[in-house]
Amino acid sequence: MTSSSHTDAAGPLAGIRVIDLTHMLSGPYCTWLLGALGADVIKVERPRSGDFTRIIEPMVDDESLYFLSVNRNKRSLTLNLKDPKGKALLLKLAADADVLVENNRAGVMDRLGLGKDALAKVNPKLVYASISGFGQTGPYQHRAAFDVVVQALSGMMSVTGEPGGEPCRVGTSIGDIGASLFATIGILSALQKRHTTGRGEAVDVAMLDCQLALLENAVARTLNTDQQPRALGSRHPLIAPFQAFRTADRPLALCVDTNEQWKRMCRAMKLEHLLDDPRFPNGSRRNANHAQLEPILQEAFASRTREEWLQLFDEFDVPSSAINSVAEAIDDEQVRHREMVVEVPPGSGRKFVDVPIRWRDSEKPASRPAPRLGEHTASILAELGIAARDVEQLQAEGVV
Amino acid sequence: MTSSSHTDAAGPLAGIRVIDLTHMLSGPYCTWLLGALGADVIKVERPRSGDFTRIIEPMVDDESLYFLSVNRNKRSLTLNLKDPKGKALLLKLAADADVLVENNRAGVMDRLGLGKDALAKVNPKLVYASISGFGQTGPYQHRAAFDVVVQALSGMMSVTGEPGGEPCRVGTSIGDIGASLFATIGILSALQKRHTTGRGEAVDVAMLDCQLALLENAVARTLNTDQQPRALGSRHPLIAPFQAFRTADRPLALCVDTNEQWKRMCRAMKLEHLLDDPRFPNGSRRNANHAQLEPILQEAFASRTREEWLQLFDEFDVPSSAINSVAEAIDDEQVRHREMVVEVPPGSGRKFVDVPIRWRDSEKPASRPAPRLGEHTASILAELGIAARDVEQLQAEGVV
Repeated sequence: MTSSSHTDAAGPLAGIRVIDLTHMLSGPYCTWLLGALGADVIKVERPRSGDFTRIIEPMVDDESLYFLSVNRNKRSLTLNLKDPKGKALLLKLAADADVLVENNRAGVMDRLGLGKDALAKVNPKLVYASISGFGQTGPYQHRAAFDVVVQALSGMMSVTGEPGGEPCRVGTSIGDIGASLFATIGILSALQKRHTTGRGEAVDVAMLDCQLALLENAVARTLNTDQQPRALGSRHPLIAPFQAFRTADRPLALCVDTNEQWKRMCRAMKLEHLLDDPRFPNGSRRNANHAQLEPILQEAFASRTREEWLQLFDEFDVPSSAINSVAEAIDDEQVRHREMVVEVPPGSGRKFVDVPIRWRDSEKPASRPAPRLGEHTASILAELGIAARDVEQLQAEGVV
Repeated sequence: MTSSSHTDAAGPLAGIRVIDLTHMLSGPYCTWLLGALGADVIKVERPRSGDFTRIIEPMVDDESLYFLSVNRNKRSLTLNLKDPKGKALLLKLAADADVLVENNRAGVMDRLGLGKDALAKVNPKLVYASISGFGQTGPYQHRAAFDVVVQALSGMMSVTGEPGGEPCRVGTSIGDIGASLFATIGILSALQKRHTTGRGEAVDVAMLDCQLALLENAVARTLNTDQQPRALGSRHPLIAPFQAFRTADRPLALCVDTNEQWKRMCRAMKLEHLLDDPRFPNGSRRNANHAQLEPILQEAFASRTREEWLQLFDEFDVPSSAINSVAEAIDDEQVRHREMVVEVPPGSGRKFVDVPIRWRDSEKPASRPAPRLGEHTASILAELGIAARDVEQLQAEGVV
């Protein structure tokens, strides 16, 4: 990779340079997005060990799949931030950057002398984003948080799983990734603001807060009604029928929202008599009486296979689908058409999910593989004007 | 509300005007965020009926809580887009807007003559964002999708729930909200690009694609290993112990990721003998042998109450927590400190979740309640220079 690699990137964020002081998932997923959208992301890692996730199994050719997936489109610079020389190099890098993202516990960056106020002195245009479990303020600010903790604390687990069953985790790390997405929105909003004010901004995103924002409707019901949101299996809390049903073979999912869809569903299932049933005139009533509706539909569903039902619902324009495994999902013809799987680097056989945004005019930047630890240390330091022999000296001293 | 209302808004997106042609959830959640971040969001609704969700129960004083929550910080303009006069008004509005967001089925906007190419002619700087179930391209592009359908199709349901149990829906509408968040990121990225190119961009976000992006690690494991991701209850697929455990009373969540945390956990639980156990030397091995680890820990956990364990883990700095209901989460001292609940309008008693981004310099824009249907029709048309008597005529004709 040459020193001008970041200017080769196409994509809407071309020209934006991001210093990435994050590790694990909540930060790296955010900076993966920024890199995939065209930003030049410099991942700063501890010399020798690097991001903790570099050792999480399963490994692919001695590299962690976990790490490889969310660290694509980044360059790796090793830097010991506790060493004054390392800190000086970070400040030099920050002077010319647009965004800094970190996901340490609150207070760690300040203790390193690299907090948002210190960085604002070096570069008043810098957008400084902090992602943490609980935020930069409040009684829990210094606590570490991980995915399951915020899924548990926020109530997300309490609404996920079977009715009356064990608490279930959302099967992906939504505790982390929720924060990644809101942090990305915060960073991009701050960049927009900078065009008006000419100044940077500090953004503070907490994993716990983000889970509550994802629970928006459940929060509103809790605060404004006597409803207590709880786990409902596959069922929607407000609309019915909007859930999974068993068929003669494998289960399917059905979403009937509007009355038009309800009419079409009743016709498709030859249940027209339900159209005049006073228990089911609209989605809200169908939901209130779902305990009576569900067995009627379940009985009907048992008479045909999933494929037969799906074909019928397709003809009648009723939203329904198979319940896929991840492997089946990836192989779905629509997912293939959308090219949601990318091979990085091309020809390597290593395949990952793509960023789910498509553009009319922007080229999709070519995906670059996750960097080896310190892979770009020499080239990035050269960009900072540091001579090759000084780089060697810094390496010998363990600064980089 | 005066005609200058949008310039009063603080927040990082102040000065950005958004035309919101969305309904239901995936679009409105996106435009709620944009409005809460300071943009002037004009929600365009069909005369008389408006957004379908205005009738979703539960109602609060005859207004739908569902609607009220995700349509805060917007103005409502009624417009019949099938009427040539209504269409002309939309084009007039778009000429001066920064962003248009729509979440109709692919093809609907083109048939109305309001597709991205038509709008680019009126305003080449317009960012045009489309959110749909399956995207603007591909074999499913004309199908309707709803939350459970994309949770089912993507594999999200297949990894959520109890091992071997029924397929479970993530207990919030992550199928919609996932797309809302990526669409917001797409829009803000396009605004950033516009500062470079001077031109708008069209953004195409599909709910299904977004679910796969949220499943990032499961997708990577499916494609690169022989692992088949599946529902694991509360357990993390790669790290252990990272799950819920029963105690003498209520369950708790525990996240042990690094070896340091593992050591601290073993000391806290007086299970130091596990530190030398060859089955559990690191997170990956602990995960591979979780079937042996889990009962050991479960037995230990049964000896104390949750509160006792949480206090102990707090002393030993081991990430752990209660598994809260949504009501308990809202009442948590950290959530209260972060002011994640806002009363809109103040004094109304109506309370909702806030946007989970905190700023150093930007004021949080005052939350405004969701608009009544057509509440701002007259004032927005006045901003367009349309005389009051002409507005009355348009109302009589059913155009607005």
